[in-house]
Amino acid sequence: MSKKSFNPVSIIRKKREGKEVSKEEIEYLVKQYTRDELPDYQMSAFLMAAYLNRLNNDEASALTGAMLHSGKVLDLSDIPGKKVDKHSTGGVGDKLSLILAPIVASCGVPVPMISGRGLGHTGGTLDKLESITGFEVDISLERYRSILKECHMVMAGATEDIAPADKRLYALRDVTATVESIPLIAGSIMSKKLAEGIDALVLDVKFGSGAFMKTIEEAKELAETLVNIGESFGKETIAYLSNMNQPLGYKIGNWLEVEESIDALNGKGPGDVMTVTHQLAGTMIYLGGKASTVSEGIEKSKQAITKGRAMETWKKLVDAQEGDRRLMDNPGKYPKADHDFTIKAKRDGFVSAMDAYEIGMASVELGAGRRVKEDTIDPAAGFVLKKKIGDSVKKGETIATGFTNNKQAIDAVTESFSQAVTIGDEKPEPILMLTHKVDKKGIHEISHNS
Amino acid sequence: MSKKSFNPVSIIRKKREGKEVSKEEIEYLVKQYTRDELPDYQMSAFLMAAYLNRLNNDEASALTGAMLHSGKVLDLSDIPGKKVDKHSTGGVGDKLSLILAPIVASCGVPVPMISGRGLGHTGGTLDKLESITGFEVDISLERYRSILKECHMVMAGATEDIAPADKRLYALRDVTATVESIPLIAGSIMSKKLAEGIDALVLDVKFGSGAFMKTIEEAKELAETLVNIGESFGKETIAYLSNMNQPLGYKIGNWLEVEESIDALNGKGPGDVMTVTHQLAGTMIYLGGKASTVSEGIEKSKQAITKGRAMETWKKLVDAQEGDRRLMDNPGKYPKADHDFTIKAKRDGFVSAMDAYEIGMASVELGAGRRVKEDTIDPAAGFVLKKKIGDSVKKGETIATGFTNNKQAIDAVTESFSQAVTIGDEKPEPILMLTHKVDKKGIHEISHNS
Repeated sequence: MSKKSFNPVSIIRKKREGKEVSKEEIEYLVKQYTRDELPDYQMSAFLMAAYLNRLNNDEASALTGAMLHSGKVLDLSDIPGKKVDKHSTGGVGDKLSLILAPIVASCGVPVPMISGRGLGHTGGTLDKLESITGFEVDISLERYRSILKECHMVMAGATEDIAPADKRLYALRDVTATVESIPLIAGSIMSKKLAEGIDALVLDVKFGSGAFMKTIEEAKELAETLVNIGESFGKETIAYLSNMNQPLGYKIGNWLEVEESIDALNGKGPGDVMTVTHQLAGTMIYLGGKASTVSEGIEKSKQAITKGRAMETWKKLVDAQEGDRRLMDNPGKYPKADHDFTIKAKRDGFVSAMDAYEIGMASVELGAGRRVKEDTIDPAAGFVLKKKIGDSVKKGETIATGFTNNKQAIDAVTESFSQAVTIGDEKPEPILMLTHKVDKKGIHEISHNS
Repeated sequence: MSKKSFNPVSIIRKKREGKEVSKEEIEYLVKQYTRDELPDYQMSAFLMAAYLNRLNNDEASALTGAMLHSGKVLDLSDIPGKKVDKHSTGGVGDKLSLILAPIVASCGVPVPMISGRGLGHTGGTLDKLESITGFEVDISLERYRSILKECHMVMAGATEDIAPADKRLYALRDVTATVESIPLIAGSIMSKKLAEGIDALVLDVKFGSGAFMKTIEEAKELAETLVNIGESFGKETIAYLSNMNQPLGYKIGNWLEVEESIDALNGKGPGDVMTVTHQLAGTMIYLGGKASTVSEGIEKSKQAITKGRAMETWKKLVDAQEGDRRLMDNPGKYPKADHDFTIKAKRDGFVSAMDAYEIGMASVELGAGRRVKEDTIDPAAGFVLKKKIGDSVKKGETIATGFTNNKQAIDAVTESFSQAVTIGDEKPEPILMLTHKVDKKGIHEISHNS
């Protein structure tokens, strides 16, 4: 491909006019940009045109491919089996990776999982893992491969050479108000996931107050775009739409979520967490070729818990990544936060809403997340919910307990958490945890309550 | 105004969402950008959002004001009389400034005219003036004022300190495909015109093949936006929509257009040129307070020609700006181009179309304009038309004569000029030179044939 044959201004103009930009044109822009041969101001004009006039599926795939090939693509072909990963678009109390990866790995499907850190009101798998004393997420590629071989799973952070174009483009989007575009979001997610060297992917696309996609319609569009991109790269991709209108499970905060994951692996996970976990894990087992249907995969997922195989795999992984394995048997030995406080019901009734975004932001204030990139995380900070949507409460009864080492935050957080909870007279309808499945054939309604 | 209170990303996002951006926000962006405190990539994202979601009239005025106040605004209040200028959006064979400025000045209305150079297929007043041996357009402000006092007019180029933000923004728009936005174009024009220290402005908004606005609808929108901006700054502004579907007059090229302007000032101007000249000049005389209606202004404009007063003013100006005044009396003494050639009719019939864009581009090829910024102009190059739309022709009869010092260009130019002329069987309808007037009260249909 000759540089001479492309003109950045013509490509920007094309997108500005709502026309389709070719794969070669997108590759040219991304390649030149990564090489510092296309200035930021042309890329940002293109991104704004792409934001407002949308990228279609072919353009989104081309962008994904260009970002993917800007860096290293792991080759895991020497490791036997179909490698399958899961990605979540992010939520509050979303510890599912910690539960489902050991389940799936224990069923013989290798799970090479590269995760991220908390963003805004949402938690991040890496931060949760690092709350485990000693656990290492920044590991060499060599060690990554050897842990994957040994444990059938590995959980690490991305290295600098994974999709570097995505990092640069994301940083530019962040300062030019071009983040919230579904094809751009999808391209960013998929360029990193495809770089993992996976064979198939399950996506948990969340909607609701605690998700980045507030409406089910946006979540559908994102799910369809993600599946389309995955399939266009020859990777079987299945997405689920899941409900994030209240926190997942009862615990929010890094170590607190590890605790709840340990409970789950011990067969004592909360209903909503397990509904989504088994659906996603079952689908991964199916895609990994260890079940002939998703339903069979779900059965295997449940057995992995009841037979203790998932917990066994999990402990092996914690060991392999230098985490303190003893904490898995005695989570109660983990150092507590200096302060705890309770949120109490202001009236009798039924909990009818729990704004997951506000609760996520409140847990950030307690120290469970970063307000700015430089903040350090308090692994012990967070909330333990006593009530969830649908539960009856009496005035003065505890709805949640907060934990923090930052005493100053308590008053404001108590207030904002209380505001985030609505208590009504009527018992609300049960929450539908999973509403849709998206695969290459299209979108299908499903319904699984918590 | 505190810097702290504005966030560039929020302002970009607002425009991205199609919301109105405040005057203060636009001022902040332009001010920070001009000070190098806002990066190009944020400005280009804003410009693309503004391109696709449009700036409304208030936003266009705010942008104009911000660019205007980024530099020096001339204060001509010590010069008696209402200062009135004209601006044309650019065309082919458009030498009207050279005719109407002396007309209006000779009627006692001071005309402080800051002009530009040729752009693309269109000519520029500065290039035409510089074809006059010795004529100086780069003059000091002091001299500018003294010539304006002495001649009631002055014609010069913009200095670096006129609307510097416009220069920087235009350069950025040029490389980010954000040029062709009517509010951005209008802001760019008006920021420079308002910096001249004028009291009122007449605008010649051209439409058709030889104009930047190809359709009458676009021209209307531009005219309305321009008038709105002018009035929002308290300057009486009147715009006309004029036809640029064939070249104006019979001569195209820098010195050739000076020649035709001399003819016009001597009372021998072509019909189309004089129709538009008198309308614009009459309106300027009216706005300058030297006529109580536009019609009376037009009468005065005609008399300025017949009584020779306009020519007298013109010669005085040429003298004041160091041009060779003798050429005004003996234009035939101007050195001819080395080569001339003729374009001949290919069949009998009536000229039904003359693509002004193609003819403009052909004259650029002959040396009358610049293909790239660094090109030097050949003042003698251009065309003299023998036929215009509506004229009958015989096969082989001369339609135009070309002049150039670049022999190599002749064959291709002959071909492209011939292609630009359509000869039909029927005599076409006469061209309506002026179709609409736009003032603060709105848009009004008018009709003046050539």
